[in-house]
Amino acid sequence: MSLRTAPVQIDASWSIGGRPHGGYLLSTMVATGLDADHPHPMAVSAHYVASPSESAAVVEVERLRTGRRVASSRLRLSQDDDVKVEVLLSAGRWSDGVEPYWSSPGGPPELPPLADCPRAPSTGPTGTRVGQLDHCDLRPDPATVQWAVGAPAGVAEVRAWIRRDDGVDASPLDLLVFADALPPVTFDLGLYGWVPTLELTVLLRGLPAPGWLRVVQRARLLQDGWLDEECEIWDSRDRLVVQARQLAGYRT
Amino acid sequence: MSLRTAPVQIDASWSIGGRPHGGYLLSTMVATGLDADHPHPMAVSAHYVASPSESAAVVEVERLRTGRRVASSRLRLSQDDDVKVEVLLSAGRWSDGVEPYWSSPGGPPELPPLADCPRAPSTGPTGTRVGQLDHCDLRPDPATVQWAVGAPAGVAEVRAWIRRDDGVDASPLDLLVFADALPPVTFDLGLYGWVPTLELTVLLRGLPAPGWLRVVQRARLLQDGWLDEECEIWDSRDRLVVQARQLAGYRT
Repeated sequence: MSLRTAPVQIDASWSIGGRPHGGYLLSTMVATGLDADHPHPMAVSAHYVASPSESAAVVEVERLRTGRRVASSRLRLSQDDDVKVEVLLSAGRWSDGVEPYWSSPGGPPELPPLADCPRAPSTGPTGTRVGQLDHCDLRPDPATVQWAVGAPAGVAEVRAWIRRDDGVDASPLDLLVFADALPPVTFDLGLYGWVPTLELTVLLRGLPAPGWLRVVQRARLLQDGWLDEECEIWDSRDRLVVQARQLAGYRT
Repeated sequence: MSLRTAPVQIDASWSIGGRPHGGYLLSTMVATGLDADHPHPMAVSAHYVASPSESAAVVEVERLRTGRRVASSRLRLSQDDDVKVEVLLSAGRWSDGVEPYWSSPGGPPELPPLADCPRAPSTGPTGTRVGQLDHCDLRPDPATVQWAVGAPAGVAEVRAWIRRDDGVDASPLDLLVFADALPPVTFDLGLYGWVPTLELTVLLRGLPAPGWLRVVQRARLLQDGWLDEECEIWDSRDRLVVQARQLAGYRT
């Protein structure tokens, strides 16, 4: 085991109504735990203990084991010795351009052409700034975001095109951001409150091909103040590259 | 933050071919992180760093934050100072008998009557002892385990009835075991090798009603030596009580 610390600065441009974006925090933390032999996050589990402030923070990086195929690390983001986010990371190296050995039926989400999907604005109707939408070019299927014009459909599924705002092809770290970049599916149920993530696990299943990605997010169950949000990301070659799920709170 | 240690004894009766069962380890560890105000695991993320031996071990319990609704802890199982399993736990208290506020279409897995589903034996055709099947009374739908008689169907989905071997109704900790109790779905693809779990996240969505539970496990993608296994558990009142997913290795 080895223990080291990495200073990080939490960039306010990623915040949502003053709270740092969960996927941005995850990506920032995971970057400190990779190495040359294990450059790709394979499985990442984050528990969001408290919301950090938009200022300096420290990431403590503890390497639990360095194996040939997998390196396991524990990452802790803290401010003034208060734990804000705790992450477990299993990292390895994905082969380039590998094909599935087997996959279940069902492919990428069906989406209208990009030209028919307007970009999601980073300032919504309520005036809250959604920072990650300045960093991510998100183009939702209009049919899945009718709540934005006052007509929630009750389906709780959002489908979208996504890439970085600067047009650069997504890295594995960008995929961690994208896995948490969509608006809460609760909006489609007419619930417009804050949906804070308690736990988020992201599996990266391979390296994405260049180009636009497609993302779908849906819920299975809202109950007792908590919901799951399931996210899949598919690349331009119709390969599943991310499976993610989070448990988040909601208020009716 | 507080740090304490709890000695545990890893019971060989739970092992599979000499390796301790992942769900049993998880349940044993999580038991050390609960308290009277936060008695229920809500979200649990385990990274299996190395396989422990069937002997004494220590669980280090670090409370990261104790909130009103959620208590967050980090749990580490080690032997001779080597980390074997690292777990993040967000615990709280579920209300009894709560009903869904909203759920997506699709209910519990369809299963034949219990009487038509023979119990899965703890010693399989290859002679390997599968310890958790002495502790769990698992009754698979015969249609989903035809690989056991040499006829894998290529569907990679197993559906089953499940309860404790002693017939006692399942506790939340038992559900952590059940979330990892089924045979690997790879068997249905004709792959009979060892499927070691790298990462397992379990969301407990509510307290189970008394009686038999129904469990379904399926995969989405096998690629580059790794697969996901998705597990849902439903109670006798048709309520979804567990959503789990793991990333595991396979060899062709």
